[in-house]
Formats: sequence, structure tokens, C-alpha cells
Amino acid sequence: RSHHPVAEMLDLPFLPFCVLLGGLGFVCVAFVSAWCQHWRGGFALDGSAQTFNWHPVLMVTGMVVLYGAAALVYRLPSTWSGPKLPWKVLHGALALAAFGLAVLGLAAVFRFHNDHGTPNMYSLHSWLGLATVLLFSCQVGAAPLPGEAEPPQAAATARSSPPAAAPPGCVGLGEGWAHPGKLSAPLLPRKNGTTEYKRLPAEAVFANTLGLLILLFGVLVLGALARPSWKRPDADSPDSCQVPAPLR
Amino acid sequence: RSHHPVAEMLDLPFLPFCVLLGGLGFVCVAFVSAWCQHWRGGFALDGSAQTFNWHPVLMVTGMVVLYGAAALVYRLPSTWSGPKLPWKVLHGALALAAFGLAVLGLAAVFRFHNDHGTPNMYSLHSWLGLATVLLFSCQVGAAPLPGEAEPPQAAATARSSPPAAAPPGCVGLGEGWAHPGKLSAPLLPRKNGTTEYKRLPAEAVFANTLGLLILLFGVLVLGALARPSWKRPDADSPDSCQVPAPLR
Repeated sequence: RSHHPVAEMLDLPFLPFCVLLGGLGFVCVAFVSAWCQHWRGGFALDGSAQTFNWHPVLMVTGMVVLYGAAALVYRLPSTWSGPKLPWKVLHGALALAAFGLAVLGLAAVFRFHNDHGTPNMYSLHSWLGLATVLLFSCQVGAAPLPGEAEPPQAAATARSSPPAAAPPGCVGLGEGWAHPGKLSAPLLPRKNGTTEYKRLPAEAVFANTLGLLILLFGVLVLGALARPSWKRPDADSPDSCQVPAPLR
Repeated sequence: RSHHPVAEMLDLPFLPFCVLLGGLGFVCVAFVSAWCQHWRGGFALDGSAQTFNWHPVLMVTGMVVLYGAAALVYRLPSTWSGPKLPWKVLHGALALAAFGLAVLGLAAVFRFHNDHGTPNMYSLHSWLGLATVLLFSCQVGAAPLPGEAEPPQAAATARSSPPAAAPPGCVGLGEGWAHPGKLSAPLLPRKNGTTEYKRLPAEAVFANTLGLLILLFGVLVLGALARPSWKRPDADSPDSCQVPAPLR
């Protein structure tokens, strides 16, 4: 059915795809932690630059990896039949964990800014990032509790939200990338910098590679969400493919 | 058919949507030009910071606005019947103009870097940006000439490419936003900065608003490309909805 060689190569069944995606998510979290530990001075809770370092780690873990996992739960074919409660609990637990880590990640950056007299909500990254977390909080708040019937409007809104939040998330990620900590910008080349900035240092290669891996994770999640054959067959979203079976 | 109030509000026919999108694209180009002219010192061709200023203007005009317009040409219902040649010429002209401006925009930043001894290809923005333009050049190079039959593989690949390039483009845009010119970063709050940085200056509000408008343009183009009812009815892409008409 897939005509394109790249599409065929990626034409994995859903479960092996999930294993690969889980491995990639693990690598993203491990790499962002290693970056902060090895090059950015490690972690602390005292309001110093080491407090800021919790921000990238918690946002990547929460808003990228756990949020992506929560979005994909209902693509598991096992969720389409049998009792739905365990899957709703799993989806809710992943989404709540993602939200909790995002709130802690925001607390880390506000604490760091306040302790350094740095203004908050200054950059496009901060505008888009806060908007994304606020929209996510609406998603979490509007979700039905396990056992409640899911209202179709909320379902359609919730289903369509992850792709719509992706471009702002990507802009925010990219802008954050350019000035981690907003105090120094070691990844930027300097006009009058020392000679070490004239060559691409190991940290820049590592951080850029990490950025590419996070981006790949997000593209794979969006691709999996968009794939028609992985959608729940009875999905009533206006975007889903509906073959009028009764007419056949 | 649309259940959600926001979806209903946006449930414009295609042509009024295009008029609004065109207006938004014009505003994006006007605002990025005004930003560079009013706050960043204007334009020049002498390798100075004013040479760099061509980069955001040309990339927004080419890779965002004209590229988006080229991607949407075949969503015009008028292209689905009658002679295809004029539409192919329009699509090709828009894509070639976008590509030409992108190449000039890259030339501006390389010229600026080289004249200042700043290393090229240093940031994630540069990696993603060059990869996006190279992929775009493959799209342009693989496109059939007007009159040639369109091979189905290339067609499917070309159709699916704009959404796949969007997240890298957004990351690149966001990172570029944080340090225009890569020499000074006036939009970043400073720890030991002067008091003017303590308050959100007009430039930051303007530039952040411009970033949001560019993002909105991109989201609207992607949303229009994804909308099933705006797709060419006989599209044979694996992602399109195929109602088996002969069986009815």
C-alpha cells in the first residue's frame, strides 16, 4: 500500500514502533539530563543557574515524552475492545504526570528568574510556552473522569489539540535552545569571542543533536497520530476517514 | 457538520480563507521589514549587520509566505477541472520565487558571518534551516515540468513534504528569533543589564507579536492542507479519504 521507499521502511506495526519511540524518548531524557549535568553545572534547588537546569529536563520529560505517550495510548489496538477503564487510567496517569512535571519545570524557571532579578514572560519562548501549558491545563481539566461518559465535543477538541500545539511548542523549544538559562549563551558564536568559539565545540554538537532527537520524537508522535490505519476504527472525528460501510 | 464552536467560526469557504491568509501573509512581510528597518538598523549589502537584516525578511517572504501559497494552489477548486497548465505554472512560479528568495536569504547570512569572522553552521537553527532549504531544493528539482506527466511517487512525496518540514522550520524560526544576527541579543533579559531591559521594551512586544503572526500563518496553511474537504477529490495519496465510489 505504501509506494514510497522511506514510507515502506517506516511501515512498522504499531507495537514495534512504540518500542522504538519509547527508546528514543528514554534517550532524549537521558541526553538532556547529561547535557545539564556535564556542561551546565548540574542540578540544585537554591535558585542558582543549577536550579534553571531542571527546566529543560522537566519540560522535555513532561511536555514532550510523557505528553506524547499519553496522546498515543488510544492508538493501541488493545484499547479498542474490552474494558476501557484501565486504558483511561493509564492515559490519565501519563497526562497528569506530564502536567505535574511541566508545572515543576515552570516553577524552576520562575524561581531562577526571580532570584536573579530577571524579568519573567519576556521572550517569545515564554509566551508560547506558558500558552501551551495553559492549553494543556484546559485539556486536563476538561477530561472526563474514568467512568464518566465522554462528551463528543470535548473528545473532538482533545483529539485535535496535540497537533495544533506542536508548532508553537517547536518554536518555543527552538528559541529556548538558543539561550538556555538566558544568562549566558555559550552555543552562540561570538564576534570577539575566544578561539574556542571559532570551532564547533563538543557541547554545541551534543546539544544540537539532542534538539534533533527531541524534534524526531515529536514528528514521530504527530505522524503516528495522523496515520489513518492506526486510528480507532469507530472514531467519529470529522477528520477521520469514514467509508460508508452500510452502503456496500 | 462541525461540532466545535471554534471550528464553526473558522469554517470559512476556501476563497475567503485565502483572502484572509493573503492579508496575514502581507502583514507578516510588512512587519518583519518594519522590525528590521525601525529597530535593527535597516538594510545594506556591504556585509554589515544591515546585510544580515535581509535574512529574516527574505526567509519569511520566501520560506513562509510564498512557500505556503505554492503549497495551497492545488487546493483551489478551480484547479480540479479544466486545463491544469496555468495552475502548474502558477504553482511552479510561486515555488521558484520562494526558493530564489531563500537562497538570497542564505547568501545574506553567510556573507554577514564571513565578513565578521563568525563561524557558519553553528546553531541548531542553521542545521535545521539548511536541511529545510536542501529538502525544498529536492522538491523543486523533482517537480515535473509543465506538460510532463506527474509520477505518483514524486507526487505523494511532494504532497506530504510541507507538513513534515513544518516542525523543523518552527524550531529553526524560534531559535533564530532568540538571537537575530547572532551578535547582540537585545530581546534577551540581562542579569546585569540596564534598567531598560527590566521592562518589556516595545521591540520585544513587536517582535514577539510578529513571531506569533508568522506561526499563525504556518498553522493556517497546515490546517488548510490537512482539511479533507479541501483536498482534490481524486487525490490518490495514501492519507486521503477514499470512498470506494464504483462500489456504490
